Amino acid sequence: MAATSGLELRSRITSEGVLELWLEEVTTPAPAADEVVVRVEATPINPSDLAMLLGPADVATLQSGGTPERPVTTASVPQSRLGFVAARLDQPMLVGNEGAGIVIDAGSEARGLIGRAVAARASGMYAQYRVAKLSDCLVLPEGTSPKTGAAAFVNPLTTLGMIETMRREGHTALVHTAAASNLGQMLQRLCQEEGIALINIVRSAGQVALLRELGAKYVLDSTSATFAADLTDAVAETGATIGFDAIGGGAMAATILTCMEKALARKATAYSRYGSPVHKQVYIYGSLDVRPTDLPRNFGMAWGVGGWLMPWYLQKIGPRDAQKLHQRVAAELTTTFASRFTAEISLSEALAPPVIAAYNKRATGEKYLITPNRA
Amino acid sequence: MAATSGLELRSRITSEGVLELWLEEVTTPAPAADEVVVRVEATPINPSDLAMLLGPADVATLQSGGTPERPVTTASVPQSRLGFVAARLDQPMLVGNEGAGIVIDAGSEARGLIGRAVAARASGMYAQYRVAKLSDCLVLPEGTSPKTGAAAFVNPLTTLGMIETMRREGHTALVHTAAASNLGQMLQRLCQEEGIALINIVRSAGQVALLRELGAKYVLDSTSATFAADLTDAVAETGATIGFDAIGGGAMAATILTCMEKALARKATAYSRYGSPVHKQVYIYGSLDVRPTDLPRNFGMAWGVGGWLMPWYLQKIGPRDAQKLHQRVAAELTTTFASRFTAEISLSEALAPPVIAAYNKRATGEKYLITPNRA
Repeated sequence: MAATSGLELRSRITSEGVLELWLEEVTTPAPAADEVVVRVEATPINPSDLAMLLGPADVATLQSGGTPERPVTTASVPQSRLGFVAARLDQPMLVGNEGAGIVIDAGSEARGLIGRAVAARASGMYAQYRVAKLSDCLVLPEGTSPKTGAAAFVNPLTTLGMIETMRREGHTALVHTAAASNLGQMLQRLCQEEGIALINIVRSAGQVALLRELGAKYVLDSTSATFAADLTDAVAETGATIGFDAIGGGAMAATILTCMEKALARKATAYSRYGSPVHKQVYIYGSLDVRPTDLPRNFGMAWGVGGWLMPWYLQKIGPRDAQKLHQRVAAELTTTFASRFTAEISLSEALAPPVIAAYNKRATGEKYLITPNRA
Repeated sequence: MAATSGLELRSRITSEGVLELWLEEVTTPAPAADEVVVRVEATPINPSDLAMLLGPADVATLQSGGTPERPVTTASVPQSRLGFVAARLDQPMLVGNEGAGIVIDAGSEARGLIGRAVAARASGMYAQYRVAKLSDCLVLPEGTSPKTGAAAFVNPLTTLGMIETMRREGHTALVHTAAASNLGQMLQRLCQEEGIALINIVRSAGQVALLRELGAKYVLDSTSATFAADLTDAVAETGATIGFDAIGGGAMAATILTCMEKALARKATAYSRYGSPVHKQVYIYGSLDVRPTDLPRNFGMAWGVGGWLMPWYLQKIGPRDAQKLHQRVAAELTTTFASRFTAEISLSEALAPPVIAAYNKRATGEKYLITPNRA
């Protein structure tokens, strides 16, 4: 096959503190034996992609340049935040962790896939063409559109990984924050299907209503005056001793641990100044609040807080078990793991300052889809 | 054998916010088949005992009452701190987690031990007589005095448990804070013996000198201007990815994680915005600083912070492996696991306000020994 070329989105933060976003015309490399070339039709903007795309730039300073077809967008990055991205300074970074499209070329081991729709997990999916390893692809069932498979990896595998973590570490119910998110709604559907008690923590009455509509039994509004008491009751009722926290900063992780400890203390028969010996765990997997995590340690001695990242977790459980999770996603792509998208945008629209402002708001349940090959 | 009676120390915090310490005359219960009655000759004051003894009382308000033989000491507990001890309010608590003495009576399974010196792990060792389970005793080698065996459990098993945790969780070198303590010096001796790289963090030049005298290679003064840089260098050199922190509050745990992450970043070949995938762990086992633990999360996503408690850890590894650690302590009681004591005090002296003020200072390396049956 003749060499293809196409546009790919690049993000660079310079040592001088300037964020630059542009579309680079690149020649698609020939696939190795175990690789496929995907014409990317649909790729979502996840919170983790935003972090790579924009870094710690001040979005109030976004400016557009270049031409309509080949825009160049810039913004300034405060000097105080450059330290957080020291390792990427001045290097052009690829963006986009997942997407789906049509296989237009393939190495010797994958030639049968030419013409098929696949979902792929590879860095740099915000591009018209992307070479991906066969092992990072999910072949979509016949008749399934790339749009349906665009978000087949990040959110579905994150929710499945959370449940898997819960079970393997000996817990039977869980707490989730920022629970009205796209991911949170998916976790609610999954837990309902599995019969797992899930305590959803949200930040407004509207979000409570949204999750109740999905059939959620436990939905708590963290802005309510009775939040801590309600959470303690829900934890006592469900026996939840693990939480997944997308907020990260401030008191949320500690509040969850404290309520768990109080719920356990209700059942304690003797005083121990070390608290309950039952281990309480909160995993921080996001950073919606970038302030430090504040732990007053008033929840006994049996506790843990730590970072949690889906790809590392899949590595930890090994390829065989990870593959089982992949298969489950494929089977339930239009039900449990379905994503709804707020709007579809082109690669150049993805660089337009007003569009960036819109998708960077991360409004509840909103999710944008980039369609790099839209006519 | 006729019933024995003796004094035992009791601590109560009332709902009105008064700490009361006194000596209660109690009749020693007859031992069950698997129990021994120990005439306690020596029992140390560990930081964990102080927490049970004094709770959150304001030691500036200590007052003595009663008689010289049967003193009663009181202090006030600020209302704001009563919540921390809600579960023990108005109940008389026993104090003292370890000690050693002579077996004066025994159940059917332990009669051969009468007359022998044993170390025992039981709550309420601040007493003239204590009934203990055989499985919680360590029979001291012939010729070993109770004083030598008085601190055979808490510090030795804590240091061994730390090493065990390090190995089982896949780390090869470790960081320790408040490292000039009695426990810290013991850990230094143990690591030297085992050939494990140990990074000692202390808080003064005097403490640096103390550990250097013991042969410590890595001793860092956290008050030094170059502390973070020095710690990063030491971590890079040793490959330490686990720390045990006795301080708990403030920035220490985060500083250790940050320096570990920086040391790992030196070897990184590609940028990852999630940081190094190598897991970095800090266990908090003490609370010298009672302020909240502050985690700015600028150390990637592969990290954990959690509580660590020796008795729970021994339960986790199971009786067979715990027994191996016990045997090791017995074999090295006068070498690796030897404790030196600052002063010996009687049970009634232990209640005297100036003496409480002295042992509650927790001055570096100081350790008091109570001798409940001193003539």
